[in-house]
Amino acid sequence: MFAEILATGDEIRSGTLVDTNSAYISQKLEEAGIEVLRHQCVGDEMTILTNTLRDIGSRADIAVVTGGLGPTTDDITAEAAAETAGVKLELNESALEDIKAIFKKAGWEMSSSNRKQAMFPVGASILKNFSGTAPGFSMKIGKCRFYFVPGVPFEMKIMLEDYVLPDIVKLQDNKQIITVKTISTFGLGESTVGEKTAAVTDKFNVKLGLRATFPEVQVKLYAQGSNGNEVASVLSEASAWIKEQLGEYVFSMDGLSMEKVIGDILLSRNATLALAESCTGGMISDLITNVPGSSEYFLFSGVTYSNNAKMNVLGVRQETLEKFGAVSEETVREMAEGARRISGADYALATSGIAGPDGGTDEKPVGTVCIGLATPVKTITKRRKTANRQLGSSQETRMRIKRWFAMMSLEILRRELTQQLPESFY
Amino acid sequence: MFAEILATGDEIRSGTLVDTNSAYISQKLEEAGIEVLRHQCVGDEMTILTNTLRDIGSRADIAVVTGGLGPTTDDITAEAAAETAGVKLELNESALEDIKAIFKKAGWEMSSSNRKQAMFPVGASILKNFSGTAPGFSMKIGKCRFYFVPGVPFEMKIMLEDYVLPDIVKLQDNKQIITVKTISTFGLGESTVGEKTAAVTDKFNVKLGLRATFPEVQVKLYAQGSNGNEVASVLSEASAWIKEQLGEYVFSMDGLSMEKVIGDILLSRNATLALAESCTGGMISDLITNVPGSSEYFLFSGVTYSNNAKMNVLGVRQETLEKFGAVSEETVREMAEGARRISGADYALATSGIAGPDGGTDEKPVGTVCIGLATPVKTITKRRKTANRQLGSSQETRMRIKRWFAMMSLEILRRELTQQLPESFY
Repeated sequence: MFAEILATGDEIRSGTLVDTNSAYISQKLEEAGIEVLRHQCVGDEMTILTNTLRDIGSRADIAVVTGGLGPTTDDITAEAAAETAGVKLELNESALEDIKAIFKKAGWEMSSSNRKQAMFPVGASILKNFSGTAPGFSMKIGKCRFYFVPGVPFEMKIMLEDYVLPDIVKLQDNKQIITVKTISTFGLGESTVGEKTAAVTDKFNVKLGLRATFPEVQVKLYAQGSNGNEVASVLSEASAWIKEQLGEYVFSMDGLSMEKVIGDILLSRNATLALAESCTGGMISDLITNVPGSSEYFLFSGVTYSNNAKMNVLGVRQETLEKFGAVSEETVREMAEGARRISGADYALATSGIAGPDGGTDEKPVGTVCIGLATPVKTITKRRKTANRQLGSSQETRMRIKRWFAMMSLEILRRELTQQLPESFY
Repeated sequence: MFAEILATGDEIRSGTLVDTNSAYISQKLEEAGIEVLRHQCVGDEMTILTNTLRDIGSRADIAVVTGGLGPTTDDITAEAAAETAGVKLELNESALEDIKAIFKKAGWEMSSSNRKQAMFPVGASILKNFSGTAPGFSMKIGKCRFYFVPGVPFEMKIMLEDYVLPDIVKLQDNKQIITVKTISTFGLGESTVGEKTAAVTDKFNVKLGLRATFPEVQVKLYAQGSNGNEVASVLSEASAWIKEQLGEYVFSMDGLSMEKVIGDILLSRNATLALAESCTGGMISDLITNVPGSSEYFLFSGVTYSNNAKMNVLGVRQETLEKFGAVSEETVREMAEGARRISGADYALATSGIAGPDGGTDEKPVGTVCIGLATPVKTITKRRKTANRQLGSSQETRMRIKRWFAMMSLEILRRELTQQLPESFY
């Protein structure tokens, strides 16, 4: 079975809003064993909409359409579906009652325009929406089963899960199970990861996908079959082979984020963490505290941008700053030890570097970072340099460099925690 | 003139990668006076590619196609374009020399597969790529002028700017100037901003777009005409009207970020800033330090997650924590004053709240934040509560709540700095 996806709306068509729904729906359909052939975005314009619905209806078996179900005059998806199928719109009393109930519960006044949201093409099945005012609907146009759902991402996700995916499973003759395994890596570029892993598709019955979210590269393995145990076993062998190829660059065999992996290790050891951030400017502590429950192990970050703050808060010596500079292994050693001392944490990680666009020198160019890690038994320091490729505006480049500094620092902490840090690391 | 956009590649088609290129290109084309009718994504499959190119060639005047120009066997865009147009591929010697030069300069070995990147449909014009190894090309298929560019966003952006947009301006008979004005707001929901501003399209000759990047809502005004001064004057009048409607909720008339606006005000006053962050976990200092040059005014953030850190680093009194709790106006007052004292900053902003998913109580539910601001003359404190709608996973909800806490805190600082803070604020 083949699927197509259509996102509607002028905001999407004109690029004011990036369409993230279609990628999400594609992934979910592919995981359910349906190949997605095409996704497209068009505006709220009747002729284009009906032509597009007709084309999809003649090509695909399944289609998911997002957007255009709201109360305003721009929202014409139901009307376009009715016109394409050659049927009229009719009021669905039960859907109208549901919409009224939502307004009543929220204490809002229902405007007459919301009544429009209960008008559906004759013969359509209604898909209830428990998280918003716009119900969806499902109907056949041409040879294709269409699912019309709202464009608001979290409403779309719930309705996809509740109606569309279960329904599609029923439509499949030869039920296929597709399982995905995600492996997270840091330290190798996307092309290198690709070269090292490409042979997995010859060796095992899996599909390979790479997903680079700078500076992390995820390896995704997709296995397909009618027997769940067999699929799981193929994935398990293939992912063990990937781990062999990528070795210490793998930081999660379950697609977890670096901050979640580190949080889990700290929790399991009953250990605590503090930070002393200069060039990363709070990014590391922001990442760490995104994880629910991080207050169990995260105690403190001293974001010491000024030299005075490094001295007053962390106890870095003026002499060290004068002799070696703020960006030096000597300074991050004192920052890490200071953060550990004042917070009482077991581990303290410190960063000082040059995120740019200004402040670089020949000896310490933009992209240079010094990282210190104080542990219960020792303090280690490292100096690293990122490839300093100009990508976009100076602020975008600066944010990428900060992000790389943060990930490199967390990686050093992770390797120390897992005792994998070779002396020659990088 | 009407345009369509096509993104190619299996990663995009299957949803492993979100296509952000098409939204970017749509915006640029619309700003150049070209209406974009459709954008779509298909995989690296010859029949679908040639059918799609043929359809676009019969409908549109201009098309931009991204992706599929690399050296691997998956990359078949040039071949598909040649087949659709009914011409052969031929080697372009000059493009091959350029590719060789790039490899030589980088010190990489050029593989034989890269030779493929210099093969183009007969009659195509080559678009040089100075930032990657894949040149683009331009040719007519059907009635449509096609531009084929790489899928790597930063290479695509440079080539769009260097070749595609200037070329399109030449193609237009009736040259239209489209200018955009972006106004940034915080504190009102998207629907309220929409209701308050909808009449702008009747009163002035402009188009209106809203762009919500939680929790900020941007108002975009598009004006079009053949005379630059007239377009500028229409936009200026329309945006002044928008400012009247939205009043104090507008924080930038130039689409700047909150952190940039605050940085500019601090710089202009020669004033400095420190932070004391509990619930925001370093997010505010991360935002502030994303701005190039922020080290001129940003001194320090004490991310004091634990009560000990609040006491040891910021000097919050144990008695205050015991009597009022960490999330209290009394505690953030002492946090703000402590951060100001130890950093020597002119202003210090402090946050303490409950980002969830756990830790909420009836009296202080998840989404509650206390904010303190110490200035050279006084300390003010506020308690706020965000709407606590469950959106996605607990981590996604937590990150949204942190983001709202951060923006609300910065907004209180901005209003104080601009002396707009009414006693009854919110």
